[in-house]
Amino acid sequence: MNCILVYDIPDDGKRAKIADTCLDYGMDRIQYSSFTGKLRATHQEELMLRIKKILGKRPGNIQLFAISADDWSKRKILKQTQENDG
Amino acid sequence: MNCILVYDIPDDGKRAKIADTCLDYGMDRIQYSSFTGKLRATHQEELMLRIKKILGKRPGNIQLFAISADDWSKRKILKQTQENDG
Repeated sequence: MNCILVYDIPDDGKRAKIADTCLDYGMDRIQYSSFTGKLRATHQEELMLRIKKILGKRPGNIQLFAISADDWSKRKILKQTQENDG
Repeated sequence: MNCILVYDIPDDGKRAKIADTCLDYGMDRIQYSSFTGKLRATHQEELMLRIKKILGKRPGNIQLFAISADDWSKRKILKQTQENDG
């Protein structure tokens, strides 16, 4: 299922480790602290447990949304690359 | 409908203006460049148009996901506040 993971983690080291973990799960970075990717239900649980373990007792807000194919196909994207007209 | 908006915008001024616009639409900040909130379809369109206008020709990646009530209720949240045990 298509998922989006968004997190707010003050600790730089923890944040970097969590980003690496998302990449391990084959997710794509869409922003500094946000990833999208296809994850089956068991992997969603597993990823959240791994993140919880990395975070330990440190503060953080991590939110994982699994999104139906229909809603996913309707997402709105505005993507512009570097302006090259000066 | 419950929505999540995630953006990656290099220009500090544009990014700040877009955050203000999200707040204008009653959205809640969950991370530096990510907001959630209830937006009906017309407001989703309107918000994306306003963001496009603010962004102008600058680079950016803005993604808006509208999420069904069922998927929303199943989102996974890990939220920990500042440790106070030393």
